[in-house]
Amino acid sequence: MTVQRADARRNYARILAVAEQEVAAHGADASLEQIARIAGVGSATVRRHFPGRHAMLRAVFDERIEALCVRARALAGADDARAALLEWLGALTAYSASARGMADLLVQDGTAGADHPDHVNACSVKLTGAAEPLLRHAERAGAVGPDVTVADLVTLVTGIALATEKHPNPLAEAHRLLDLTVAGISPRG
Amino acid sequence: MTVQRADARRNYARILAVAEQEVAAHGADASLEQIARIAGVGSATVRRHFPGRHAMLRAVFDERIEALCVRARALAGADDARAALLEWLGALTAYSASARGMADLLVQDGTAGADHPDHVNACSVKLTGAAEPLLRHAERAGAVGPDVTVADLVTLVTGIALATEKHPNPLAEAHRLLDLTVAGISPRG
Repeated sequence: MTVQRADARRNYARILAVAEQEVAAHGADASLEQIARIAGVGSATVRRHFPGRHAMLRAVFDERIEALCVRARALAGADDARAALLEWLGALTAYSASARGMADLLVQDGTAGADHPDHVNACSVKLTGAAEPLLRHAERAGAVGPDVTVADLVTLVTGIALATEKHPNPLAEAHRLLDLTVAGISPRG
Repeated sequence: MTVQRADARRNYARILAVAEQEVAAHGADASLEQIARIAGVGSATVRRHFPGRHAMLRAVFDERIEALCVRARALAGADDARAALLEWLGALTAYSASARGMADLLVQDGTAGADHPDHVNACSVKLTGAAEPLLRHAERAGAVGPDVTVADLVTLVTGIALATEKHPNPLAEAHRLLDLTVAGISPRG
């Protein structure tokens, strides 16, 4: 029984890893059949984990939120607190820029479900809790002001992702505008 | 004939001024009948200028874009180039925060029309041309870096407006995040 469970977990981890790669390569067009082929399992196995494309996309983005949380916790003890915060902001920007198009597609295909806002909210609470020590570490190092919150950072990065999604190269443009937001439009005053 | 034209222009200017007030007070719910009443003209006169709510809203927002252009030109010669740029960014933020909800409503009521993206683009070109001297004035004063463009400022402000539109107090939140973006999340480095 334990062995079967461990097998099932490894199976799921492999399928999810393949799904992440396929979503990174093809966005919301990633195909469940292709994921099954690359993972070396049957379509039925993939569909047992992900009943549809929406469930697969949500699992991929939940996994990426989880990875952002893990990264925030790992960076919170870094020697260079400013560099650590900026590294995390860069990862958050990459996530937001790719999640944007996804969010729209989920809404468009009508499968986002009524629990979508609650789910987004739960992700946000999770992210805020995980990044708080990293931000306060940067504050103690004098790298950010005491009135800056994780919610502010998430809102600014989300805004950049939203405002750049129609740019020919949204990710590069988002990173450029993040750099400007970190440095300040006009920091002297 | 000249007198009649001058009368018509004054009439239109008064109706537009009333429309601006009503849109500021009631958003896209501003009523053409109420605008006619306050302006002291008949409904038919209002409908001659604005065949429908969409035409009225567009006229109001075009007028506000025009006002932003006029203000940019007036501020471009200010003694304190940084204060002048920040004043304009504040006005742009107020515009974007109020225009946001509007844009959605225009799309929702299906009257935005196929020319909507072209129109938005034309506004953006107009705004960029008008604000360029103001930004370069601030650059010469050492208040902004040479690689910052008006398009960057418009994109950042639009992003803030988009990401704060569901906040209980979107305008105050947008101004707070603009201040943070001007000062920089972490300007030292």
